[in-house]
Amino acid sequence: MTTLHVDLDDRSYPIYIEQGLLSQSSLIAQHIKNKRVCIISNEVVFPLYGESLINSLQNFDIDSVILRDGEQEKSLANFDGIMTHLLEKGHGRDTTIIALGGGVIGDISGFAAACYQRGIDFIQVPTTLLSQVDSSVGGKTAINHPLGKNMVGAFYQPNAVIVDLNTLITLPPREFAAGMAEVIKYGILGDAEFFEWLEQNKESIKAKDFDTLAYVIARCCQCKADIVSEDEKEAGKRALLNLGHTFGHAIEAEMGYGKWLHGEAVATGMVLASTLSKYRELLSASELRRIIDLITYFDLPTSSPESMACTEYVKHMKRDKKNLGGLMRFVLPEGIGQSHVVSDVTEEELKQLLG
Amino acid sequence: MTTLHVDLDDRSYPIYIEQGLLSQSSLIAQHIKNKRVCIISNEVVFPLYGESLINSLQNFDIDSVILRDGEQEKSLANFDGIMTHLLEKGHGRDTTIIALGGGVIGDISGFAAACYQRGIDFIQVPTTLLSQVDSSVGGKTAINHPLGKNMVGAFYQPNAVIVDLNTLITLPPREFAAGMAEVIKYGILGDAEFFEWLEQNKESIKAKDFDTLAYVIARCCQCKADIVSEDEKEAGKRALLNLGHTFGHAIEAEMGYGKWLHGEAVATGMVLASTLSKYRELLSASELRRIIDLITYFDLPTSSPESMACTEYVKHMKRDKKNLGGLMRFVLPEGIGQSHVVSDVTEEELKQLLG
Repeated sequence: MTTLHVDLDDRSYPIYIEQGLLSQSSLIAQHIKNKRVCIISNEVVFPLYGESLINSLQNFDIDSVILRDGEQEKSLANFDGIMTHLLEKGHGRDTTIIALGGGVIGDISGFAAACYQRGIDFIQVPTTLLSQVDSSVGGKTAINHPLGKNMVGAFYQPNAVIVDLNTLITLPPREFAAGMAEVIKYGILGDAEFFEWLEQNKESIKAKDFDTLAYVIARCCQCKADIVSEDEKEAGKRALLNLGHTFGHAIEAEMGYGKWLHGEAVATGMVLASTLSKYRELLSASELRRIIDLITYFDLPTSSPESMACTEYVKHMKRDKKNLGGLMRFVLPEGIGQSHVVSDVTEEELKQLLG
Repeated sequence: MTTLHVDLDDRSYPIYIEQGLLSQSSLIAQHIKNKRVCIISNEVVFPLYGESLINSLQNFDIDSVILRDGEQEKSLANFDGIMTHLLEKGHGRDTTIIALGGGVIGDISGFAAACYQRGIDFIQVPTTLLSQVDSSVGGKTAINHPLGKNMVGAFYQPNAVIVDLNTLITLPPREFAAGMAEVIKYGILGDAEFFEWLEQNKESIKAKDFDTLAYVIARCCQCKADIVSEDEKEAGKRALLNLGHTFGHAIEAEMGYGKWLHGEAVATGMVLASTLSKYRELLSASELRRIIDLITYFDLPTSSPESMACTEYVKHMKRDKKNLGGLMRFVLPEGIGQSHVVSDVTEEELKQLLG
């Protein structure tokens, strides 16, 4: 088993990565302080893994909230539904929430844990590649608002993140690909060696070789854990993790949440950011080529939706949380393996890029 | 001007107490990091003090959300309305929320600040005695749920608390009295000397003598600041601040939020807790008499609503956030000026007390 640590003083926590962890009763139980547990999951994941998890928690008093699947479920209405469930079942401050699912379940469950009675314990059990390499680590929790993604949320750290690699067996190919977008992101934004390693090992990743996947997930989590330990509240370096996200969030918002998967939108967003870098001569044509090739290899989209041009992007980007003082902020790669935040991108540049 | 400090490492902040602070432009401005400000207030307070505040912030870009008055406004619907307002007006992470009003405004504004884009700055400008001595200090923010008061919230500290004593001039007598309930609470739970001082100075308090009120507010804030610095998340000592609240919250919930003011419910709750202490011989008959006399002097209720007996109380108290492991928790005075948390109160004792 690989164990990593996210180092945040009294809010530090471990990440465990291995096949079969859902059956490791004592591993999970050691992170639950009291008797009561509420599992939050969705109707796709719960039938697959709910039983294993419940079997591993036989000494606990368990109930569950099962949401529908999809980004549109990260809503205020579902948040309210979780609060009502917890109150109706008489959960107190000593309950632990377990989030069993992908990024949507992790985000809404984490936000529910952050707010219920001003904060209760929670454990992340991410079941998609995307949530295993990205959203389950770092304590960003949120729900969406009709006017913007993740606009209502909290920084709230889990007690533990438990990655059972077996959950990737049932993951649909499109979701697996979406996770690879975030994996590739770590290479581009800050780890040239890892980007090369991905190019060399892409076949065994696509074949879901478990040793390879364990390495991929651990390396991404380590990268994220290092950045988060240094900058929990996104005052500086953490913003680099948003590579591809300024464009990506605009695509998701314009197309309607759930039409494009988050990872798909980020993939196209990374290509757009990289193209902007090339215009600014921060990235060579061959580097841009390698980025597009790797993204394409994992069956991810690399071009903007036909219905979207500059106006549509800017409309959404002006609302981006990462903006400061009214200026839009972008993460731009500087070669492969380095990146920085800029806020001087002009509307002309965007017009040239987006049409 | 009296200045106190709440000491919480990188989340420390000052409390300023004085007449006329709403006009002290530079005092307020130094706690606003950027240009944009959103004032959250209600339709009673804003017409009285909104203009002074806005005049003091002439170099800022200001808009406002004005709620109706009353405890029932601390709702998820209003929280959602604030989020929508902030997004529609294009507020970013660099906006500062100013809460101008009593406890309801402070609580919902603080929770909005805690959640908007995962947390933005906020300043408390409490305009009721209750919020000045209690709810504006300590970082507890929340909204109500139909199944319980303050059930959805966050620990989130303000940048500063600005107490302009002039706001007490327009405060209705019933609201002033409600604030006195929390003032008396500090005396009973941990400060015998202050309780005596209150007995000796009750006339000048009732006459709203400003020097006396400044002392009252500063002493209460100091007491709360000391407790909060020691125990921000209510793992221990902070629970003592809930003296009278287990019963009080049950009264508020049963009677319907807003029918009894929070302070009125706490006043009766303190009498009930003190009576329980007397049953347990932790409090003498004369001490109980002094507590009831002081509460009565400030025109606060001292007996349970006629419609409520043991069953009605227990129904609500079972949902109390302070419960752990399914046990109901009460703060009981031990003489005047000391108190402790117990979880061994039996249903028989409650029946004897509540009928």
